[in-house]
Amino acid sequence: MSGKLVIGVDIGGTKVAAGLVSAQGEILQQARVPMVSTGDAATGLAAVTRAVRDILRNARDPQVSAIGVCCPGPLDPKTGVVINPPNLTCWRQFPLADAIAQTFGIPVAVDNDANAAALAETLWGAASGYRHVFYGTIGTGIGTGIVLDGRIYEGATGAAGEGGHMGIDINGPTCPCGKRGCIEVLASGPGIAKRARKKLMDGRNSKLLELSHGNSEDVTSEMVSQAYRSGDVVATEVMQETLRALAYWLGNIIDLLDPDIIVLGGGVANMFRDLLDDIRRRLRGACVNPSAQHIPIVLARYGEDAGIAGAAALVRAQAASSAVATLTQTK
Amino acid sequence: MSGKLVIGVDIGGTKVAAGLVSAQGEILQQARVPMVSTGDAATGLAAVTRAVRDILRNARDPQVSAIGVCCPGPLDPKTGVVINPPNLTCWRQFPLADAIAQTFGIPVAVDNDANAAALAETLWGAASGYRHVFYGTIGTGIGTGIVLDGRIYEGATGAAGEGGHMGIDINGPTCPCGKRGCIEVLASGPGIAKRARKKLMDGRNSKLLELSHGNSEDVTSEMVSQAYRSGDVVATEVMQETLRALAYWLGNIIDLLDPDIIVLGGGVANMFRDLLDDIRRRLRGACVNPSAQHIPIVLARYGEDAGIAGAAALVRAQAASSAVATLTQTK
Repeated sequence: MSGKLVIGVDIGGTKVAAGLVSAQGEILQQARVPMVSTGDAATGLAAVTRAVRDILRNARDPQVSAIGVCCPGPLDPKTGVVINPPNLTCWRQFPLADAIAQTFGIPVAVDNDANAAALAETLWGAASGYRHVFYGTIGTGIGTGIVLDGRIYEGATGAAGEGGHMGIDINGPTCPCGKRGCIEVLASGPGIAKRARKKLMDGRNSKLLELSHGNSEDVTSEMVSQAYRSGDVVATEVMQETLRALAYWLGNIIDLLDPDIIVLGGGVANMFRDLLDDIRRRLRGACVNPSAQHIPIVLARYGEDAGIAGAAALVRAQAASSAVATLTQTK
Repeated sequence: MSGKLVIGVDIGGTKVAAGLVSAQGEILQQARVPMVSTGDAATGLAAVTRAVRDILRNARDPQVSAIGVCCPGPLDPKTGVVINPPNLTCWRQFPLADAIAQTFGIPVAVDNDANAAALAETLWGAASGYRHVFYGTIGTGIGTGIVLDGRIYEGATGAAGEGGHMGIDINGPTCPCGKRGCIEVLASGPGIAKRARKKLMDGRNSKLLELSHGNSEDVTSEMVSQAYRSGDVVATEVMQETLRALAYWLGNIIDLLDPDIIVLGGGVANMFRDLLDDIRRRLRGACVNPSAQHIPIVLARYGEDAGIAGAAALVRAQAASSAVATLTQTK
């Protein structure tokens, strides 16, 4: 594996994004193609192949040493087999890493997007130089990844790091996952919007009514953030509740994992970019770790491109470590 | 380090227990001396020295290669320095490992009791042969330890594995640690008793009144267990609530850590010895890990002796691994 460039492929339910990524984690070039996630396995694979070919065709230096792929789980990162992602019904027990490796003749690694993004932040981003990293991406959902000693912590079956479904309110609202009071159902974008809408339906007056043109059903987390910045009382309450929930959740994670750093990405994390110190202050009552106040809580380097960078990191990290046994190699 | 025997020392607020431990984790011999936890550092150390000397004096084969010590935290397992345990005011920033090593001239390792017990279960007990182990001891408090790839996971500062203060009810009762709804305040022995007493004070009739001779203030978790076995409705409710809380908490841990096995020790875990399958069933709604149903939940091998065995495991594991750099060695 001598090339300096790798390709990172980010597979979603509606599109495949691929990028040419340097040894420093810079995304030099990108391609996007639509994903047919409900078709047969070959059609799904064809979208991936097309995105990679687009990159190779346009690359000035087509010396690519490996392809990293991030894909919705559940999947087995050790074998590169995609098990049964709810949003990608085209693949059931599909050997994605092997299939791509056979097409391009170079090593391929596969993992889920939050794990991959956690690794990209550790290799090249906000957690560069840190040993034990907890990463959370807070947006439509909450995905998390754990990097210990520079490697993704996969757990016994590859299912570790699902921190978004850790519950903090045993009597709270039910998450689509079936559990009550997951942090995802409370602090994701839709969770924030839902709590705001409930306050409006309780008859509270708020700038949110104006922002949603009187349709409280249309309130989004972005509107909550906007109303909060203008001093709106209801939006401020919702933001405070969210901060409290996030600090309580991070306190749990700190007490269990004692990380060197916490990196937060995603749209909701961005909403809270000026409030990270507030979260840190709230940690005082949210964990017993005596060093909690000193754990940096920082924003991720990668935003929309976290998937591409993360996918590239999967093969970069393997090239740099002895973990090549977990890499699917053909030819 | 050639000897087959090591000494494990379990330091508590009122006593020091030491044991001679074989390479198979058998406790061959024990000694107990009172601990003066409120005196000066030397007096505290003298109790430890006396317990170790008692063992050496009575040992048939006094070929002891190392001494492992478990001690209430916070402490730094890398340096063996005890920081400021609330129940051992004799030691403040005290280099316990160094002090013992200087006295006996053999290697000494120090860690907290739950971490040490987790390691003993992994080396010799219920988790023998498993890779990633989550251990919880549920009694007066709830202590936990994480073993990954055969080693205690210490985290960035040695403070990892404090799972007893993970919160599952952000609006729940306040724990002495200052956080609301920790699993410790809900499911420890005192937590169980408190919930039962509250039901009695609400005017509920129960066999618990008879067991406590009409003094509901005297109800203990043991009485709850006894009343439950005789079919008492109030006690059954308290047990069900506790099972629900424990399953929710373990679900969180499974989603974050995806362990190969969960080992539970301590008096309260024993109360639930016939209900572990019930906890496993409840995991269905308590985590997203698709393999959660297959994670064994088992009782610990070590009971009262978990501290001695755990302390011994600290030096056994180091003898068997390359982690000797973390061991305090003198002479």
